[in-house]
Amino acid sequence: MSVTAPAGFEAAGVAAGLKTTGKPDVAVVVNRGPRKVGAAVFTSNRAKANPIIWSQQVIADRVVEAVVLNSGGANCFTGSFGFQTTHQTAERAAELLGIGAGDVLVCSTGLIGTGDEVFRQKVLTGTAEAIAALSPDGGDDAAAAIMTTDTVAKTAVMHGDGWTIGGMAKGAGMLAPGLATMLVVLTTDADLDPLEADAALRAATGTTFDRLDSDGCMSTNDQVTLLANGASGVRPDLGAFRDALVSLCQELAVKLQGDAEGASHDITIEVRGAVSESDAVEVGRSVARNNLFKAAIFGNDPNWGRVLAAIGTTSAQFDPYDVDVSMNGVRVCTAGGPDRPREEVDLTPRATRVEIDLRVGEASAIILTNDLTHDYVHENSAYAS
Amino acid sequence: MSVTAPAGFEAAGVAAGLKTTGKPDVAVVVNRGPRKVGAAVFTSNRAKANPIIWSQQVIADRVVEAVVLNSGGANCFTGSFGFQTTHQTAERAAELLGIGAGDVLVCSTGLIGTGDEVFRQKVLTGTAEAIAALSPDGGDDAAAAIMTTDTVAKTAVMHGDGWTIGGMAKGAGMLAPGLATMLVVLTTDADLDPLEADAALRAATGTTFDRLDSDGCMSTNDQVTLLANGASGVRPDLGAFRDALVSLCQELAVKLQGDAEGASHDITIEVRGAVSESDAVEVGRSVARNNLFKAAIFGNDPNWGRVLAAIGTTSAQFDPYDVDVSMNGVRVCTAGGPDRPREEVDLTPRATRVEIDLRVGEASAIILTNDLTHDYVHENSAYAS
Repeated sequence: MSVTAPAGFEAAGVAAGLKTTGKPDVAVVVNRGPRKVGAAVFTSNRAKANPIIWSQQVIADRVVEAVVLNSGGANCFTGSFGFQTTHQTAERAAELLGIGAGDVLVCSTGLIGTGDEVFRQKVLTGTAEAIAALSPDGGDDAAAAIMTTDTVAKTAVMHGDGWTIGGMAKGAGMLAPGLATMLVVLTTDADLDPLEADAALRAATGTTFDRLDSDGCMSTNDQVTLLANGASGVRPDLGAFRDALVSLCQELAVKLQGDAEGASHDITIEVRGAVSESDAVEVGRSVARNNLFKAAIFGNDPNWGRVLAAIGTTSAQFDPYDVDVSMNGVRVCTAGGPDRPREEVDLTPRATRVEIDLRVGEASAIILTNDLTHDYVHENSAYAS
Repeated sequence: MSVTAPAGFEAAGVAAGLKTTGKPDVAVVVNRGPRKVGAAVFTSNRAKANPIIWSQQVIADRVVEAVVLNSGGANCFTGSFGFQTTHQTAERAAELLGIGAGDVLVCSTGLIGTGDEVFRQKVLTGTAEAIAALSPDGGDDAAAAIMTTDTVAKTAVMHGDGWTIGGMAKGAGMLAPGLATMLVVLTTDADLDPLEADAALRAATGTTFDRLDSDGCMSTNDQVTLLANGASGVRPDLGAFRDALVSLCQELAVKLQGDAEGASHDITIEVRGAVSESDAVEVGRSVARNNLFKAAIFGNDPNWGRVLAAIGTTSAQFDPYDVDVSMNGVRVCTAGGPDRPREEVDLTPRATRVEIDLRVGEASAIILTNDLTHDYVHENSAYAS
């Protein structure tokens, strides 16, 4: 059900010919109210795609009635023509829905630099077709239509005390914080004020999507949106709502990690004993982005020296000769020196856990990443869809 | 001739059994004077190997009489036992050469975490054997003995007005600034003061080895050393000496790039139009470290969108919608939008040139990198020597 699991939302996904495969490529999600609360976070990449530039204006008043999303083209670095395409997409949707274009978010994903007249016409036609197909059961169709190199649609639903959160996500490469070729739409029928929705979304993405760092590459098109309509009539306990939103975002983040391009290991890097959470995050990210470490995990090689070499490049507080490292439960490094023999580590399972204890404080953080594989290189050298 | 090209230097390389292949793995370079000037730069990784910790003490007085180098083991994260191994290596060399251990640099390269009693005895025996084999013609043997996954020995010689500079280098992976599993010994018979040697070395490495960023991974063992003995009796023109040293370092850096693990393209990234050199370096490095860009080049795909996405993650001054990008001479992006069709770009040659014009200033910089290939993943997932 994904985004249509909560009351008062409709969605659809249609094939508009943007994908050469003929698969669905345009999705629309509509909030039928009564409230039209919207919150969103965007890529921190300074090179922002046209839909990002547009949507950042739309979200300013925290009112959102619809989201139009397309795969099969990022509409990034396509100049003023590309911005007009985004604008016209919002106008077309607004006209057909009887709302204002300034309340329509637009999201695009696919190849950067794609966005000519043919692209524009297909997006506009697809938007109209999707709106004609809107349904309270359309959540799964919408989730399928935003896939690019994803092999499975990613959806999640959480139920609270009288309210529901639904979500869909896409993203399989360029996964890095800030955020990462990641399009996510979250919906809830809980009754939230705009600032409550915004705070809950930022808190949830900060410890979930923002800590998924598959390949260190930050996208130009990332957007995570939360729509709240109060259709349940229930004012949620804010703590319970935030917890549920974190759980749902974490579930989607793990699904993104599990479907990352070419990956053969899903690596959880837990950093403990840091003096601050930001130190723990910096250390985890540095390891997550080290190609030598990632290639070693691909080869089932518990090469802890590469973990320490990566930590050494950070500004985090630690003593390189007082760090412990475990891999899949085996302490391979104690106080910066060898401990258990590497032969004891079994790295054949896809789920891989690296635990790092900096031994200087009480803070911790978890970063999710993937290994560096032949298939990653292959997919990203041949990518053209 | 490498390091023995200048007058007054002797070298040797021997097989001490550190490499399972039986190839040479211990090298010694000795400065026979009359002057014993030494300068060195070290990895900026905070996780430093034992030879780095030792050598940073040795270089403090800017007097160096000998360098002992081994491949087949990094002696990093091997605890106080490992530091004692380095210390004993310097003591053994000093005793046999009749000099002080405090004037003997030690360099190691190979697997991190390797450095047990067997390793120690092989290094000590190899050091004695290499000293027994010292010769004014031993430069090439020394260059061969420091190879790890290098497929060719890297040496270079430059002649000035009455003086000569020689050099040898190893490094094929973990190539990133600061510096990068790179061991380099440079020798000259020019008559230099210690501060002149230090300034010349820092200036030369800053624009050569420090701008080689093959895989973004910074090593724990990097060291670049310059030995100057004045044996030519010639006080060089300092400008001419610095220029020659830059040329020689650049020649070695290009050889390192050309032999980088698994690479199929040598990529020169030239950033122009920056407001400062540091901005240009930051932009070049960001592109050089973007796995998606590097995989695209492997696939001969001129994916300029990935170049702009990488630039967007920097703090450099620029407007994402006013950047030009050329690949192998074809302007594929003008002012942040598509220009010539990607089909016009021929990326089949190994030598690849990416030119980025930020159009906001006059500063420029060049970063050397490689593509991300199946062979890189393979070599670094199976690495265990």
